Amino acid sequence: MKATAKAHTNIALIKYWGKRDERLILPTNSSLSLTLDGFSTTTTVAFQEDLSEDQFMLDNQRVEGEAFRRVTKFLDLIRQHAGKEQLYATVNSINDVPTAAGFASSASGFAALAAAGAKAIGLDLDDQALSRLTRQGSGSACRSIYGGFAEWEMGELTDGSDSYAVPIAPAERWDVRVAAVVLSSTMKKVSSRAGMKRTVETSPFYAGWIDSIPNDLKQIKEAIAAKDFEKVGSIAEANCLKMHATTLAANPPFTYWHDTTMRVMQTVGDMRGDGIPAYFTIDAGPNVKVLYLPEDEVRVKQKLSEISGVSDVILSKPGQGISYL
Amino acid sequence: MKATAKAHTNIALIKYWGKRDERLILPTNSSLSLTLDGFSTTTTVAFQEDLSEDQFMLDNQRVEGEAFRRVTKFLDLIRQHAGKEQLYATVNSINDVPTAAGFASSASGFAALAAAGAKAIGLDLDDQALSRLTRQGSGSACRSIYGGFAEWEMGELTDGSDSYAVPIAPAERWDVRVAAVVLSSTMKKVSSRAGMKRTVETSPFYAGWIDSIPNDLKQIKEAIAAKDFEKVGSIAEANCLKMHATTLAANPPFTYWHDTTMRVMQTVGDMRGDGIPAYFTIDAGPNVKVLYLPEDEVRVKQKLSEISGVSDVILSKPGQGISYL
Repeated sequence: MKATAKAHTNIALIKYWGKRDERLILPTNSSLSLTLDGFSTTTTVAFQEDLSEDQFMLDNQRVEGEAFRRVTKFLDLIRQHAGKEQLYATVNSINDVPTAAGFASSASGFAALAAAGAKAIGLDLDDQALSRLTRQGSGSACRSIYGGFAEWEMGELTDGSDSYAVPIAPAERWDVRVAAVVLSSTMKKVSSRAGMKRTVETSPFYAGWIDSIPNDLKQIKEAIAAKDFEKVGSIAEANCLKMHATTLAANPPFTYWHDTTMRVMQTVGDMRGDGIPAYFTIDAGPNVKVLYLPEDEVRVKQKLSEISGVSDVILSKPGQGISYL
Repeated sequence: MKATAKAHTNIALIKYWGKRDERLILPTNSSLSLTLDGFSTTTTVAFQEDLSEDQFMLDNQRVEGEAFRRVTKFLDLIRQHAGKEQLYATVNSINDVPTAAGFASSASGFAALAAAGAKAIGLDLDDQALSRLTRQGSGSACRSIYGGFAEWEMGELTDGSDSYAVPIAPAERWDVRVAAVVLSSTMKKVSSRAGMKRTVETSPFYAGWIDSIPNDLKQIKEAIAAKDFEKVGSIAEANCLKMHATTLAANPPFTYWHDTTMRVMQTVGDMRGDGIPAYFTIDAGPNVKVLYLPEDEVRVKQKLSEISGVSDVILSKPGQGISYL
């Protein structure tokens, strides 16, 4: 009744931006990501007959409130699957994410929780079923089941049974690197969930976003298959700009960008001008991730570190999918 | 055969962003602006039988190249109207625009040129006809025929005869002020014309932009009639963000914003947080214009001047339309 699993976070190159079902976490568009070696969560779930409620420890600290409720709600799903609805668990998670790296820990967190929880309670899930389950904890987490490049197929069914991630290319296949550029100020006024919702409901550009995704996905998968870095990078960068553009047209409008975000984007453009192929992507926050190739690592790190308002630059290689310890 | 006219520039609150006819300068959407007192062009046109070509002096300097060609091409239109196609002119323009204010001088420039040129050659045009003529020199200039708030009605006809500006509210009616925030670096990689064209042709958000304009216009005209500053400001700001968002989705994507642009936008938001009603708008370049009310002038100027990367803040009241000297 006890299992430990490790999962890595992932960075979306084609963004997940909008839900068609809030409860089941079903997206309005398919997305594609790269799992990263540098940022992981290791979680042990132990179901115990003698517990009367769940307990959640994160980095050895007891967690309550909203984060605890999301974990219990997710354990409820696992209990339902297993037909053991009165069985509670202790959950111990360790985040191996550099402090303030600006990565949402929910992707690695829910992937590890799903894997450890399902194994602990005795469910025998294949990757697809595990991805489908994970999705209901945190949408983007469903891609972290796999290493390397993975696509979350949005699916069409209202019960979500065809909405899960599939592997596109394993981590070993292509050593594309990611620099996480951490800003000194990472304040955001609108949460990812709220921003996504407001955009879907009010942005006149949302339909244009949705319409443009199938082609972005087709192109980037061809580029990954061909290991065409410039193409992967420019599609990812354009997709990110498009996603952020939808928020500027929301009502009321908003943006996740800071002035430093803008400087990082400019620097990445300048690097390309200097012959260094580098491309940025930005999630629902001010931090920036920069894609580059191994041979440019030293120069990319230096250029990014020199930007005023940048507090840290953390490098990562492609990472593996779920593993059990 | 000689006349002098003065025109002021204008700042669009609902942006002109896209042409449906490049030659006639017919827009894909109606727009609305405020004519500004602070920035004007005074132009004298003298048609002379003894000239064999046009001559254009700007701020007492002989102008050649592209700017000269745009002026002659526009004089050709005036000559055609008057049936005097072999009559050339000297054009003397004085720009009363603070150096590097980041205002396109084309709006005041072509409005003054049209008014002086038409009068000098003996055409008797009413405001509507003058606006229609001016439009063919520079689209946004057609709004500078009027003082205060003016709307450029896009029209529907392919010959452009129903595409001209109309007055919405004279300068005297409402003292809304504008601070032109001039950045130290005003470099832009994509010209307004090229940016507009690329956006119309490639942005998946362009249809959403067009669809959203009629409601923006309706709302802002109601707000102007009611002198509802918060409403005018927030509609203008949202419309500007929406326009700039269309460029982020173009192929290839681009932006006119710099990091300082971002800081100015943030400061304006912060001012509102501090109870000062202020709203920004940005044309196809990195400079920012801030709308505010007279009672907040001192505080607004101070806050904007303190922003790192801002080189000047120039204040303006609503301005008058065309006058003849």
